[in-house]
Amino acid sequence: MAPADKARAVVADVDELLADVEPDSARRLLLAALDSFATIGYHATTTRHISTRSGLSTAALYVYYSSKEEVLFRISRIAHRSALTVVEEAAEAGAGAPDRVRGIVHDFTVWHARHRTLARVAQYEFAALSQEHYQAVADLRRRIEQVVQTAIETGVGAGEFGVADVRVATLALLSPGIDVARWYHPDGDLTPEALGEMYAEFALRMLRPLV
Amino acid sequence: MAPADKARAVVADVDELLADVEPDSARRLLLAALDSFATIGYHATTTRHISTRSGLSTAALYVYYSSKEEVLFRISRIAHRSALTVVEEAAEAGAGAPDRVRGIVHDFTVWHARHRTLARVAQYEFAALSQEHYQAVADLRRRIEQVVQTAIETGVGAGEFGVADVRVATLALLSPGIDVARWYHPDGDLTPEALGEMYAEFALRMLRPLV
Repeated sequence: MAPADKARAVVADVDELLADVEPDSARRLLLAALDSFATIGYHATTTRHISTRSGLSTAALYVYYSSKEEVLFRISRIAHRSALTVVEEAAEAGAGAPDRVRGIVHDFTVWHARHRTLARVAQYEFAALSQEHYQAVADLRRRIEQVVQTAIETGVGAGEFGVADVRVATLALLSPGIDVARWYHPDGDLTPEALGEMYAEFALRMLRPLV
Repeated sequence: MAPADKARAVVADVDELLADVEPDSARRLLLAALDSFATIGYHATTTRHISTRSGLSTAALYVYYSSKEEVLFRISRIAHRSALTVVEEAAEAGAGAPDRVRGIVHDFTVWHARHRTLARVAQYEFAALSQEHYQAVADLRRRIEQVVQTAIETGVGAGEFGVADVRVATLALLSPGIDVARWYHPDGDLTPEALGEMYAEFALRMLRPLV
């Protein structure tokens, strides 16, 4: 198996999110980097590791990316933009706050189960980003949280939810989904969708006050 | 500032959990390793990094630990044993299932806020453990989950909780606390205890069926 094929096989679950990266060499480099970051971490990965795994030269890497850090940033931005889109679309599709929260938590959970390798790298290596790139990704995170917070506030305003601290409720709602990337294995008996359904139900329960 | 002092300053929040490690040199090595694992990751850390940060020689490291992997295992075992103790003690202290769940989630959340550096290393580098050490840590994790699952099952049996899948409920209950280690900063306006209170309340709500 050629290095590029191996990289693809290992990170096959994120192919769809990296499919838009053009040209093919740039995409192969991201896939190889993701595989290495996920296996040995960002700091232990060299540009040579990435180019070798992708089947390209180290010089080829610098045609597309200025540094290893930029490769991490591209991967992280793709992950966060995708998660933001998923959350925004779920919020728009919902009729009323409970429906919105249900959709957001379901889709966010499914996303983390499907793209667990990408999500883990984006989470675990967040601190390795440059100041500028860190801010850009932090901004995407704030936007994800804002979508959830707005849905909760709408429900609180309509008397459907009872929450003392909306910011903490937002974190408590998102954390189980985020944590899925840490433990989920597709060879278990839980599908991403079944997990999403249960977590959405828990999220709605969480927002309703104890009677 | 000497290397050992620097290592201590950075990981001061975990001093209490590593305080029992004897002798002093063995403890200093663990603190230095924890700091390096947390900063650049396990794979990018060398035994030389660890010894230099601790102010000891590389030879001194091998007096106490057979390898870098054993250092990670010791750190990971201390973290997981401590978390297990916290959960077991909270379960024993509770009178009835709701009280037990409240105490477990509160204390588990507080633990992750206080020991976030230790918790992050234990989580993020879990896959780097040898097969034998991985199994030992996985066993501690299963015991933590078992304490929570038993509390939930007791409540379901008493008609206090309504849960379709106890195993998934266990994960949903523990995940917000685990995820605290990723985002919590002590310089914010949330104390570990305030967060623990709110997460315990959410956990109880989560287990009560929607009416």
